[in-house]
Amino acid sequence: MNYILGTAGSGKSTLTGELKNYIINRNPETSVITLNLDPGVKSIPYVPDIDIRDFIILDEVMEKYSLGPNGGMILASDLMVNYLDDLKDEIDEYNPDWVIIDTAGQLELFAFRETGPLIASALGFSDTQRAVNFLFDSNFVLRPNGFISTLLLAASVQFRFRNISQLNILSKVDLIDEDQIEMVINWSQDFHALAESTNDREKGLIRELSMLISEVFVQMGSTSELIPISTREEKGLDILFGHLQRIFDSDESKFY
Amino acid sequence: MNYILGTAGSGKSTLTGELKNYIINRNPETSVITLNLDPGVKSIPYVPDIDIRDFIILDEVMEKYSLGPNGGMILASDLMVNYLDDLKDEIDEYNPDWVIIDTAGQLELFAFRETGPLIASALGFSDTQRAVNFLFDSNFVLRPNGFISTLLLAASVQFRFRNISQLNILSKVDLIDEDQIEMVINWSQDFHALAESTNDREKGLIRELSMLISEVFVQMGSTSELIPISTREEKGLDILFGHLQRIFDSDESKFY
Repeated sequence: MNYILGTAGSGKSTLTGELKNYIINRNPETSVITLNLDPGVKSIPYVPDIDIRDFIILDEVMEKYSLGPNGGMILASDLMVNYLDDLKDEIDEYNPDWVIIDTAGQLELFAFRETGPLIASALGFSDTQRAVNFLFDSNFVLRPNGFISTLLLAASVQFRFRNISQLNILSKVDLIDEDQIEMVINWSQDFHALAESTNDREKGLIRELSMLISEVFVQMGSTSELIPISTREEKGLDILFGHLQRIFDSDESKFY
Repeated sequence: MNYILGTAGSGKSTLTGELKNYIINRNPETSVITLNLDPGVKSIPYVPDIDIRDFIILDEVMEKYSLGPNGGMILASDLMVNYLDDLKDEIDEYNPDWVIIDTAGQLELFAFRETGPLIASALGFSDTQRAVNFLFDSNFVLRPNGFISTLLLAASVQFRFRNISQLNILSKVDLIDEDQIEMVINWSQDFHALAESTNDREKGLIRELSMLISEVFVQMGSTSELIPISTREEKGLDILFGHLQRIFDSDESKFY
């Protein structure tokens, strides 16, 4: 089971669909299903095999409880836990090798309420291998401070789902140029490089902070190394797939 | 100018209204205005003096661009930057001592897109004193891992608005009991206590992490000490006000 997480607009749905295609193209005998966990999404760039909207639709929650979009999203997201058994039954019927899970549009609804960790622990069996893919939005990480705050956000998510291996992805790299991609990836691998990319006034602070955050990732046993991905240019999916396989192969369980 | 930030449902709007009342009750001659920056909110527990909904309404954005609530919220939030001059003009007309700013319902729309930092730097004059109040939702910080991930989220926000002093608030403490409040406050003051509150398996990890995060806060020059607040029981507003005054008095500028 592979959970796709990231802030609103970071490219979760697109990656979900493209990753399924990638895996099936690679080996047509692999059974891959997608699961949409966003009760409020209107159009999705893939056809989800299982869909929370069969059970909860944001518009109906808003109408039934007379809520605006924000309150409705909170409640709809909290209500999802009532349908865990149904979702699990549907997954069991497919008996797939892979389940790719596209989470709610707003990161905080999934990651910072009780819902997300609860779903992650309830779905699947005890021997199910799981991973979290956290998307760094290319638009917001080109400056050191945007990069560091996203890194802290990634650490926060990692800690929230800390029993699950996390891969950090630099998403939508077709929006930035090769030099910029290289710069950001370099920051993620070498925190000294990050410190050097900023001006003198902030150097000390950013150096200190980036060292501390890299320690956080080291302590959690995860790598902060970013995997650059562009679904538009079909770039990076092979690297992501390789990393996922390593996570899922790290014990003897089946992939999902 | 005091920005109220926190995840969806953490109590931003309630605090905004109550803080205004508190300041006015304390000194009726103080001029305090509230500014609502959530284009999607339906009902607010106070009457905002300035309202982004005079310029952008989420429903209209959704309809005009055929978007669902999630896409609509993203676009509406990004569109806000077009009305900065209007908002600034309105503030100037009031010429207030305090501006309390209630931000978008979803934290990530304000904090992790370009909008929030852009608004924070554009509103007000160069000598305007500013503070960020980040709300820790009492419901989600009772367990060490929930507390730590919220702490990382707070650090991420602090870094996003790093030129602005940040106060961290334990919100809605009427929902938890006195012992629990004391425990969480204790965690925020003494990271050893946090490490001791968890089980043996996680002790090492949580101790390491909590030390690292406390270092992050120390480096950023902010305190991670939580201020417990219950607007329902009118608790803690005096402490918050004292902290805010210290921030705003730290140089010779006017409060807002």
